[in-house]
Order: sequence, then structure tokens, then C-alpha cells
Amino acid sequence: MKQSWRERLYIIIFHTDTPAGQRFDKALLLAIIASLAVVMLDSMAAIHSQYGTLLTGIEWCLTALFAIEYLVRLYCSPKPLSYAFSFYGLIDLLAILPGLLVLVYPDGQYLLIIRVIRMLRVFRVLKLSPYLKQANFLLTALRNSRQKIIVFFVSIATLVTVFGTLMYVVEGPQHGFTSIPTGMYWAIVTLTTVGFGDIVPRTPLGQMIASLVMITGYSIIAVPTGIFTAELANAMRSGDGLLTHNCPTCSKNLHEHAAAFCNRCGNPLFARQDSQANQNAQNDQND
Amino acid sequence: MKQSWRERLYIIIFHTDTPAGQRFDKALLLAIIASLAVVMLDSMAAIHSQYGTLLTGIEWCLTALFAIEYLVRLYCSPKPLSYAFSFYGLIDLLAILPGLLVLVYPDGQYLLIIRVIRMLRVFRVLKLSPYLKQANFLLTALRNSRQKIIVFFVSIATLVTVFGTLMYVVEGPQHGFTSIPTGMYWAIVTLTTVGFGDIVPRTPLGQMIASLVMITGYSIIAVPTGIFTAELANAMRSGDGLLTHNCPTCSKNLHEHAAAFCNRCGNPLFARQDSQANQNAQNDQND
Amino acid sequence: MKQSWRERLYIIIFHTDTPAGQRFDKALLLAIIASLAVVMLDSMAAIHSQYGTLLTGIEWCLTALFAIEYLVRLYCSPKPLSYAFSFYGLIDLLAILPGLLVLVYPDGQYLLIIRVIRMLRVFRVLKLSPYLKQANFLLTALRNSRQKIIVFFVSIATLVTVFGTLMYVVEGPQHGFTSIPTGMYWAIVTLTTVGFGDIVPRTPLGQMIASLVMITGYSIIAVPTGIFTAELANAMRSGDGLLTHNCPTCSKNLHEHAAAFCNRCGNPLFARQDSQANQNAQNDQND
Amino acid sequence: MKQSWRERLYIIIFHTDTPAGQRFDKALLLAIIASLAVVMLDSMAAIHSQYGTLLTGIEWCLTALFAIEYLVRLYCSPKPLSYAFSFYGLIDLLAILPGLLVLVYPDGQYLLIIRVIRMLRVFRVLKLSPYLKQANFLLTALRNSRQKIIVFFVSIATLVTVFGTLMYVVEGPQHGFTSIPTGMYWAIVTLTTVGFGDIVPRTPLGQMIASLVMITGYSIIAVPTGIFTAELANAMRSGDGLLTHNCPTCSKNLHEHAAAFCNRCGNPLFARQDSQANQNAQNDQND
Repeated sequence: MKQSWRERLYIIIFHTDTPAGQRFDKALLLAIIASLAVVMLDSMAAIHSQYGTLLTGIEWCLTALFAIEYLVRLYCSPKPLSYAFSFYGLIDLLAILPGLLVLVYPDGQYLLIIRVIRMLRVFRVLKLSPYLKQANFLLTALRNSRQKIIVFFVSIATLVTVFGTLMYVVEGPQHGFTSIPTGMYWAIVTLTTVGFGDIVPRTPLGQMIASLVMITGYSIIAVPTGIFTAELANAMRSGDGLLTHNCPTCSKNLHEHAAAFCNRCGNPLFARQDSQANQNAQNDQND
Repeated sequence: MKQSWRERLYIIIFHTDTPAGQRFDKALLLAIIASLAVVMLDSMAAIHSQYGTLLTGIEWCLTALFAIEYLVRLYCSPKPLSYAFSFYGLIDLLAILPGLLVLVYPDGQYLLIIRVIRMLRVFRVLKLSPYLKQANFLLTALRNSRQKIIVFFVSIATLVTVFGTLMYVVEGPQHGFTSIPTGMYWAIVTLTTVGFGDIVPRTPLGQMIASLVMITGYSIIAVPTGIFTAELANAMRSGDGLLTHNCPTCSKNLHEHAAAFCNRCGNPLFARQDSQANQNAQNDQND
Repeated sequence: MKQSWRERLYIIIFHTDTPAGQRFDKALLLAIIASLAVVMLDSMAAIHSQYGTLLTGIEWCLTALFAIEYLVRLYCSPKPLSYAFSFYGLIDLLAILPGLLVLVYPDGQYLLIIRVIRMLRVFRVLKLSPYLKQANFLLTALRNSRQKIIVFFVSIATLVTVFGTLMYVVEGPQHGFTSIPTGMYWAIVTLTTVGFGDIVPRTPLGQMIASLVMITGYSIIAVPTGIFTAELANAMRSGDGLLTHNCPTCSKNLHEHAAAFCNRCGNPLFARQDSQANQNAQNDQND
Repeated sequence: MKQSWRERLYIIIFHTDTPAGQRFDKALLLAIIASLAVVMLDSMAAIHSQYGTLLTGIEWCLTALFAIEYLVRLYCSPKPLSYAFSFYGLIDLLAILPGLLVLVYPDGQYLLIIRVIRMLRVFRVLKLSPYLKQANFLLTALRNSRQKIIVFFVSIATLVTVFGTLMYVVEGPQHGFTSIPTGMYWAIVTLTTVGFGDIVPRTPLGQMIASLVMITGYSIIAVPTGIFTAELANAMRSGDGLLTHNCPTCSKNLHEHAAAFCNRCGNPLFARQDSQANQNAQNDQND
């Protein structure tokens, strides 16, 4: 039956937890990596002049493959429109568009970027369950630290602007600081401890300010690290941090990990087995 | 009425938690960013020669705007003097000063720095409550780690001085280490892992010392990160959801926000004033 | 007796916890370091031309020594074959192979790499118990964070590919970005905050993208650090002093090493087989 | 009396917790910083030629001052010999030695390093109590992580040796990798993410290995950070982590922070105030 064929296709293509689905995903991963390798090899002048036509041929085949895959996805999806406008649906479309556009503009170098965006399809494979759980921990930690990160980035932006302007005024165009944006670019290069060395302070005052920028950058890397570590530790703990044992008296169900008594009704969470013996011991002490 | 008009202005300008206040803050943020963009564009030689007069015009308008805002703030503030000498009051004054000074010294390049300090006004917007709370976590963590950070910086300063002098003696002026301060500048560039590459050791001994500096710098970045992470985790635990009220019986100090009894000793966290009186009060309510 | 001699050799060579074994390991460590020093010194043109024959002689002696050690290990090992194909067995073989191959190809520079792999033999010494325990903490933390790290590396690979292509398109071959792989090499240099400065963006748009790459690299270093710190703290807590035996009543799982009763519910951690029987046993002892 | 004068001197000079002692320490700090400033300024060619004699004069005065201080310390110390051979005693001697040696060798540039070691005297000031406690936290964390750090450094050394040799073989002397030690220097520069850019891979294979080194360096910085953060959190917790409340039954005195029952005798650590009411509540449930 046609119906059942379509359903089977849907399970293979969209469900990653069946053996057939996993095999399909692995084949897809190989095709994506092959297509990226073709783009990269083709960008090297020596290889392009020798194997240019071969690579274009492979690229055509892969684009055709991706086009067929896109059509099959549209065909077997229960809601084709919602797939077409989903994040992955648009990425899938972008994976075949440059191949079609290249017919019109054969030298469109900017299409390269779109072809490389195919790389994002790799994340489909990470939908496999063990990775998904771990990625969720990371995303939860990032989401919880969002506001702290914004405060951090506004501080960084302020530092970059002030130091970039300062260096432009102190060092001036004759030492490479040709404008405030260039000074800010230098400040980012220095604050992030990248240090290309294409623009470098030459005056003693400039070197002192540069030292300040470097030590600042070296120290404040502790801030995002601290934020993320603290949040990740929280996210990892929160799964098993609160005990779900119900209080036998008031049945409140979430308790701290080390709780001995319910913090709503004050009764013990766990019955003592040898309460009699203990009571005697206490009586002995009280005598 | 004039009185009510002034009060309404005060709420719009100083209170960030009303809709009108938030709209005002957003407009202010745009004006600040526009004024920074003008300063940056004007510093680029190509743009300055073409659009210099236009940019000067926009700058004049924005300075006038900031001046009016400053006067309105002074006018509607209940305590104008205490505003004028507060941190933000001085920043607001600095935002308009260079525009006035430029009338006297038209080429005063150093005024640029003051104009860029307007950037600090961006932090007004961060006074919005969710960011303020997060910024407080960061500041608490920094404040608690202050003494550890000072110990760390004194150690860094010692390392920089000793290694900078050592490299000056080992490599000497012929390899770019022209003086001890230059050697210290190099030591900072290397210890912070920035590595511009403008000054570089050439002798085998110098390269060995440089290797030592690099590995030291690479390792001790763990120290501020560790300090800050540990303190931030502390600050977040004690401030976020867990009440710091001490249990009167066992003095356990972290309790859930809704806790009525200590979950360590089972005793009530808050003394009941009189159980009889409470019962009566409840009976009264039920009547 | 021959048998006992072979056993004694086995204990000296393979067991690191006896005094003789530790002395043997220290001698081996010295020989390894000496052989590495010879390889390094020989690679320096000035030293090679002056002391080349001397160094070749020492190298020959050390290779002979390692060959004898390998044969003795084979001889005294209870299972020679399983030793020969174990990780350390293969490393031991690789330590003597280049010395033999050099008879055939005297200028084989690539043999150098194999000779340096002797370095891996240093890890034999770390089999000493205190280091082994600490190395296990590190390995446990790395193993537990494996899946998170893979998610992190796939994200890094995607960023590198997309930014490398973007820079190739924006900056082009005239600014050193000669191909997409070169652009990706630059993206790795920048994202990891190494910043050699051999390839550097020159256009304003390229510098803006570079700034984005640098800030991304500066921020996401928090991710592996956070992952590893959280996992290491876990590994250290569960293995160091706190017993992971679950309480049979409340299933609290971390207890002090000497704990007899659960400190959450007060019930005994271990069932008393028969209190009467225990009492009798104690009485018997007292008699 | 002479005796009391000597004792008073001892308190001023050696005790940092009295007002007079703190004033003395601050004066000493100023003298140390002044002497360092003189050394630095004298190393700059332009300043040396103009103010050389003046700086030599100041240096002489400061050396005399330090010499007097050293003699006074020897005089008023209750155990002069044990002071003279203590760490700070030797540093104090080194602070005056170069001034005396310079009489014999006036151009001894290597004496500069000894003069800079005066910097270490700054740590005397950190003996003030709040800093000492924080420095102790840092030192405890470092001491506890010693063995893990050694495992880490042996791994780093292995990586540097293997990658340095690999790059020497792959890139060769024509691209700046003139010997294996130079290759190892490059590997350290790259692995620590410093990236001077004085030696840079030029072949595609070399760039691939370099990428691997960079990503390794970028990732394993998480290891010392994780080790130190986990240990510091431990060190900070251990001060207040264990409750010193004695068990009322068996008087065991160290308990986990959240312990409700003694983990030796199983009896509650804290008496329940309204045990009668609770018992009734439980009886009601049991009915």
C-alpha cells in the first residue's frame, strides 16, 4: 500500500531511534561531510585547476541527492508545511539552493557560505538520545546564566570602547591605531588574549594601558567560566538534588537531599527502627 | 498643576520600572549609542573628510539633547545637589562637557575620551530589576574574593618584575628588551598568554625562561577562575531560593523559602507567639 | 635456582611497589631522559657537527640497553606474548626499533618521531600508587564528561567551518586567506585565542567577523572548563572519604567512612545480624 | 632601659599587628617600591644618561637603609641566627648584598636580578591577618592538588616533546623549526595559547598538526582550572563544613553540615521541642 510505504519512509528519515533511521542518519552524515570536503578542496587553487571539473561533478551529484532527500522529506512528512518552515527544513532547503543558483551565477563565490551552512545539518545526528540529554544540560546552564552573561558582555563592550578610544588618542594613527574602531578591534584582540601582533603599542604610556587591558582580560575570563561552572553544577545537581520521597505526615513531596525532617510539618521523613532502645539510652542520660 | 508635572517627569526619568520610564530609558540608550557611533565614524579619516560637517551637526544635536536632559534631571530631582554629585550625575555632566569645551579647543583630541565615557551611561539601563539581581551576584562574588584576588595580583606583580628583569639581563637590548620596564611589558604580554610577538626571545636561555613564563601563565589562570567560581557558587546558593535565617535550635542556616520547620532537627524555625492566641485569631477569621 | 632468579627479576622489573622495583624504575627513567636529551641535542646543527659521533655512540649504548631490557622483560614475564602485544610492550619495542632500522636507512629523519615516542615510557613511573589514584580522578572526570565534550567539539567544528569560509569569502586570497582550509586554520588560531598573527584580517568587515570569533572563543572556553570542573568535583566527592553505600531506610548515598548510622534518618547503615548473637560473641571475648 | 628598648624595636619590626608595626611595614613597603623604581628607571638608556648619578645616589641611600634595617633586625631578634638563616632573613641579606658587591664589580649587570629579588620582601606585608587567611586557602588548595598537577605537567611535557619533534620533522629548518628544542619551544608557545607568531607552520600538514596542538591546549586548560576550583571549594568548605556540635549521647564532635542524627550512635543530635504533639500526630496516622 502507498500509505504504509510513506509511513515507513517517515520513520526512517525522521526517527533517529530505529536501526534503519540510524543507518539513514549515518549515510546522511557521510554525504554532508563529503559535500563539505568538495567545497574545501575546490577552494584550493592548485586542486581547483587540476580536478575542478571532477569536483563540480561530485558537487552536482550531492546536490541532486540532497534535493531528492528534501522532496522525500516533504512528501512523507505528515505536516509538509510545518516541516518546510521549521529550522531544519530551512537548513535542508539552503543545502540545495546554491546548487540551483549556480546555474544562473556560475562564479557566485558568496554561495560558498550557503553551501557551508550544510554543516549545521550535522546537528541532526546529535539528536541521538545520549547526546541530547548532555546537550540539554549545557543549554539549561547557558539559559540560566543568560542574564549574568548579558551583564558581562555589556561590561566587556564598555571596556573595549573606552580602552579602544584611549589607545587611539595615546598611540595615534602613526602606530597603526588609525581610527577608534581600529582601536576597539585592537582592544578585543588584546582583551581576549588572542594577540595577533599586527597592531602593537609603541609608546610607554600605550604599553602601560595595554598591560592593564591584558591583565583585565586575563582576570575576567574567570567571570564567564565561574558563571557557567556554577550553573552547570546546579543543572547537573537539580536532577537528583531534591528528594521526591513523600512526607508520611503531610505528603509534601520535594525535600532537600539531606533533609531528615519535613520542613513544612516538622515530622520525621523516615521512621526510626529501634526507637525504643534509643529512648532508653536518652532516659539513662537524663537520670 | 506644575507640581504634578514635575513629579510625573521625575517618575519617567528616574524610575525604570514604569512603562513610561522604560520607554524613556530605551530612547536614552538609542541616543547614547548614536552619539558613540558618531564619535567612532568621525575618527575614521575617509568618513571624516566626506561627512565631517554632517557628523559634527549630529553631535551638536545630541549634545544639546543630553544638556536638556541634564537640566530636566536637575529640575525634577527632589534633591538636585545630591544628584549632581552622585556617580551618574557626574557621568551625565561629562556627557555634555566636551560639547561645550569644543567651542574653545576645536581640535582637542583628548576630549574624545570624555565623549566615550558616555558609554558608562549604558549601565543605567542595567538597573532594570532582573539584571540588577544578577549583577549583584557577580559583585558579591567579586567582593568576597577581594582579598584572595589581592594576594593573587601581588604574586603576579612579583612574577612579572622578576621575569622581566631576568629577560632584560639574558636577552638584552639587541633583541628588543631595551629596559626593565620593556621586559616587564613583555612578561605581562607572555604571562597573560596574549603573545603579540613584537618582542620575542632569541637566545636558547631566553626561550627556556619564556617557556617557564608561558607555562606559569597558562597554569595560574586557574587561580582567579577557581576563586571566582567558588565564591559565585556560594553567592548563588545563599541568595537564590534558600533563606539564610538560622534555625533557633541547631543554627542550620540555609532553608527553603517556604520552610516552616528546620529539616535537620525538626524544630520550628519561627517561635509561635502563643498557640492559643493563634487559634483564636483563626477562629475570629472563620466567623 | 633459575626459577627463583626469573621470579625475582619479574618483581624488580614489573612491580613498582618494592624498593628494588622503585630503584629499577628510577634508573629506567634516567635512561629514557638521557636518550631523549641525545635525540634533542643531535637535532641542533651546531652540536651535531661537533659531537655527532659521540652522541651516536651514546644513542647506540642506550638502544642496546633498552634492547636488553626488552629481552629480559620477555624472558621473565609469565605471559610473554600478552606482554609483547600490550600497550607498554609495543612502546618498549618501538623504543629499540629505530636503533635497528638506522642500520639500513642511516638518514631516516622520520625515525626521530619513533625515538621520541620513548617519552611515553615515562608514564610507567606514574604507576606509583599516589599518582595513579589522582590520575584516576582525572580520567573518571574526563570519561563522565565524554558526551558533553563531543557536543562541544561538534559545535567548535561547525563554528570553525562557517567562520573559516566566511573569512575566505570576505578577505580573499589577497589578504592571506588563500583557501577555505586556510580560513579554517585561521579560525582555529583565533578561536583558541592563540593568535599567531601570520594571517590577519585587513578589511573592516573581516575585522568585525574576527572580533566575533575572538569573543566567542574567549567565552566558550568556559564550557569545557565548567564541564570538567563539575565532573571532577563529583568524582572527588564520591571517591574521597565519603562512602557510597546506600542507607537501607532512606537511601541517602554519601556517608562518612566511619559512619555506623545514617545521619539523615538515624537508622543503622548495616543490618545487625542478631543482637543476641553479637552480645554472646562479645561475652566470649571477655572471658 | 636597654632591654625594653630592644623589645620595643622587636615588636615594631617583627609584629605586624600593632599600630607601630603596621606603620613600619608601610614605610618598608614604600622603600622597597622606591628601590625597585630606581632599578627600573636606571635600566632605561635615556634616563640613565641624564639622571644616572642621581639614581646611583638614591640607590646608595636605600641600600644603606636596608643594611641598617638588617642590622637592627639581627640585633633585636631573640634568636639572631635562626632569623639570619630563615627565608626572609636571606631575602633581607640579598637586598643589601648587590649594593656591597657593586663596589667590586661596578658594571655587574647580573646583580640587577638580585636587586629585583627585593620584590619578594613585599610578601612581608601580606602577613597581615586577613590576607594570610586567604593566602592559606590558596596554598591549601594548591598543596592538595599537588599530585594531580604533577600528573598534568607530565602529560603536558609528553605532548610538548612529541608535537615539537613532529613539527621539526614535518616543517624542517627552512620554516624556522631549526631543532627539536626549537620545535618544543614552539609547541609550548602554541599549547599555552600564547602564539607569538615568530615561528609559524607553512605546510598544510604542519598547519593541521598545529590546529590539533591549539585545540588540545585550548581544551586542557580546563584541567588545572577544574582541579584548583574543586580543591579550593573543598578548602573553603572544610572550615565550616563539619559541625562541631557534640552529640548529646556519645559526644562525637565532628558531623556533616546537614546531619540530623549522630552517625556513630544513631541518636538525634538535637532535641525535639514538641515531641508530644508529633507523637500524637503519628499515632493518629497509625490508627
